[in-house]
Amino acid sequence: MKEYKVGIIGFGTVGAGVAENLLLNGDVIAKRTGVLPKLTGIADLDITTDRGVKVPDGILTTDAAKVIRESDIVVELVGGTTIAKKFILDALNAGKSVVTANKALLAHYGEELFAAAEKTGADIFYEASVAGGIPIIKALREGLVSNRINKIFGIMNGTCNYILTRMEREGTDFAAVLADAQKLGYAEANPSLDIDGFDTAHKTAILASLAYGKWFGIDAVYVEGIRELELADIVCADELGYRIKLLGIIKNENGKVQMRVHPTLIPKEALLANINDVFNGVMVEGDTVGQTLFYGRGAGRKATASAVVADITDAALNLDSNSRCRVAGFTPGELFDCQIPEEEISSRYYLRMQVKDCPGVIAQITQILASRSISISSLIQHERSHRNGEVSLVLLTHPALEKEILAALSEIAVLSVNSSPVKLLRIEDI
Amino acid sequence: MKEYKVGIIGFGTVGAGVAENLLLNGDVIAKRTGVLPKLTGIADLDITTDRGVKVPDGILTTDAAKVIRESDIVVELVGGTTIAKKFILDALNAGKSVVTANKALLAHYGEELFAAAEKTGADIFYEASVAGGIPIIKALREGLVSNRINKIFGIMNGTCNYILTRMEREGTDFAAVLADAQKLGYAEANPSLDIDGFDTAHKTAILASLAYGKWFGIDAVYVEGIRELELADIVCADELGYRIKLLGIIKNENGKVQMRVHPTLIPKEALLANINDVFNGVMVEGDTVGQTLFYGRGAGRKATASAVVADITDAALNLDSNSRCRVAGFTPGELFDCQIPEEEISSRYYLRMQVKDCPGVIAQITQILASRSISISSLIQHERSHRNGEVSLVLLTHPALEKEILAALSEIAVLSVNSSPVKLLRIEDI
Repeated sequence: MKEYKVGIIGFGTVGAGVAENLLLNGDVIAKRTGVLPKLTGIADLDITTDRGVKVPDGILTTDAAKVIRESDIVVELVGGTTIAKKFILDALNAGKSVVTANKALLAHYGEELFAAAEKTGADIFYEASVAGGIPIIKALREGLVSNRINKIFGIMNGTCNYILTRMEREGTDFAAVLADAQKLGYAEANPSLDIDGFDTAHKTAILASLAYGKWFGIDAVYVEGIRELELADIVCADELGYRIKLLGIIKNENGKVQMRVHPTLIPKEALLANINDVFNGVMVEGDTVGQTLFYGRGAGRKATASAVVADITDAALNLDSNSRCRVAGFTPGELFDCQIPEEEISSRYYLRMQVKDCPGVIAQITQILASRSISISSLIQHERSHRNGEVSLVLLTHPALEKEILAALSEIAVLSVNSSPVKLLRIEDI
Repeated sequence: MKEYKVGIIGFGTVGAGVAENLLLNGDVIAKRTGVLPKLTGIADLDITTDRGVKVPDGILTTDAAKVIRESDIVVELVGGTTIAKKFILDALNAGKSVVTANKALLAHYGEELFAAAEKTGADIFYEASVAGGIPIIKALREGLVSNRINKIFGIMNGTCNYILTRMEREGTDFAAVLADAQKLGYAEANPSLDIDGFDTAHKTAILASLAYGKWFGIDAVYVEGIRELELADIVCADELGYRIKLLGIIKNENGKVQMRVHPTLIPKEALLANINDVFNGVMVEGDTVGQTLFYGRGAGRKATASAVVADITDAALNLDSNSRCRVAGFTPGELFDCQIPEEEISSRYYLRMQVKDCPGVIAQITQILASRSISISSLIQHERSHRNGEVSLVLLTHPALEKEILAALSEIAVLSVNSSPVKLLRIEDI
């Protein structure tokens, strides 16, 4: 039984989970694989706080450089894009295998990190950076390696999915659910990274890059979060047979790649629509395998540790069989590198507007849409939503170009019958 | 770019799909991994029938031995447990890497094949043997390697899931749907392997062995198929909030392993209950990751090819990095090898019986259950199901020992109020 020394930098929630998993289940890993990843060092600025895991004496230190120096496999769990980057580069430059869960760092600086890994022939693994405990990166890179990827739809932020699930179940509005989620620890005090969609965008950028062999980076992703979502939208969507989820969407249509993150109406009977609470799910459609879906916990101490320790084991197996970079951290293949701007995409749309309850309103609005070849698939206007002489009008469209929709909305905005900005959401008939 | 020679034995549906996938997407694999698996030989007794794929001249042959001799990676797609076994052993003995989709062969003779592989240090991969295109074996062995596996629930037979889905949707009985499925090609002329649960049992045996590090073999699995399932059961389950699926069930409770295949009531809101038609889904619950689920097509030319070609690529990567058996075909670890017999399991039960519509009937039946500490969680008896002075009585129980349930049913069987055998199904509150 060959042992490999594992050093963790960052002894927070996930770091403690990884330490615990290595200590509790190291024997399982050894029996299954023939290698034992052994916890030999943990670095953190704070080594006095109790993390709920009893680690062997003498392995806690404030000296990250020492942990890097003395480990075979360095696990970066500091987070952020500054000092974490330095630790990873130091480890890679020293030829150490690296495991990280840092999606922001990868989305922003992936290419630089992979270049450093390549220079010294070191491994870099990052399964936990997307969808926590779900082995989606291994699935995409290895299990589905023979597929051209047509589409990926991912619910990849547990905080947003928890908020949307509660809004729908309880009929409570966004602000109230967010406040409660913060109280319960499901949302951060500063929730922007989650609810404004950036966290999902990081993960979307990573999956798109793996699918298409080009490290697109975070700026390539169009992002809308769930902050502006109103309960009325969830209720209307429900009535029309849809549920609203924050999706990371990746599509390749005729070699043109789109990457976007936004609240999306999906049919209630779709499996993705039934992924609730803090759970994550990623649907991958390949040209050979067809539709697949991967589901599990996207965050949390234990689930994230499961993915990190799987990576540690992969790194140890590579060291043991002298096959580092057997599957490289990232291989640029540029299968499809032509990106399509958001306004050029085609989608189905949900439009909700407050209009005056008087003759000719629907005629004026539908005329504008018709003039741009935007076809309506359903329309609802309820008497009961009457308010100040206004009614709520909801339209679903057939597929249309986004730029045509935006142009139509500009025309609708200046109509005298329309009293507030039109709410636009996109629909995916998964 | 290093090329590896791939030889296929068995040019049927899946063989043609694998050939097609290698020819169409070889470039994608090469870009992603740096190795090119190159189709160099195909052996079949019939090399004249058009399989819908144009293969390079000169690679079709009736000489399987030649294909084994001239390939780096031998792909066995003959099926069955006789000549297929010989081909695999010949290839392993010659030190060739082997890829197979043959669940029956593995379930029956896995240990012998793994021993042969170990002797020559050859690789043997079998992702396509369970749940077709879903990379569940890779997930279980690598992605979830750091988990002790508590439970696995799998919908792993597309034919059965198709039949059950249609029975429920259309309110049609088993025989009619089966006949139609046979006409449409979703069920074999001799459907026993699928509908009597044996195919699911093969897959259950393979997953259990991987989860617990002991090659249990097929005889260790308790098996009931869906042949005896009546529409009335599906309707009653629906009324009680459940859907019936043929599940492969693997559980470890306190180190005791149960493996069983039977129609199972699961709550309608469970993700598994929403996997319909020919699709498969496998839920794995690990001690660290919690619940995960993997979904996709479990059969068919293309989906199965996706898994086979992923294995071929893994084999090629191992050859390329000189790391054969980096993850061995099977590593006996005997994490939990104590198997629990079916009558010792504890479960919740669904009991449906035809009883006389007269005073004291429910009292007699519930008294028998109570005397064996079997507690009832719901009970329905409808006026409308009245027939020949009989009514249909459906009981759901709280968890009880199977042997107590069976003993109670023997007592109920001889009651004068009971007119036909009690229908017993098991419930899993996933």
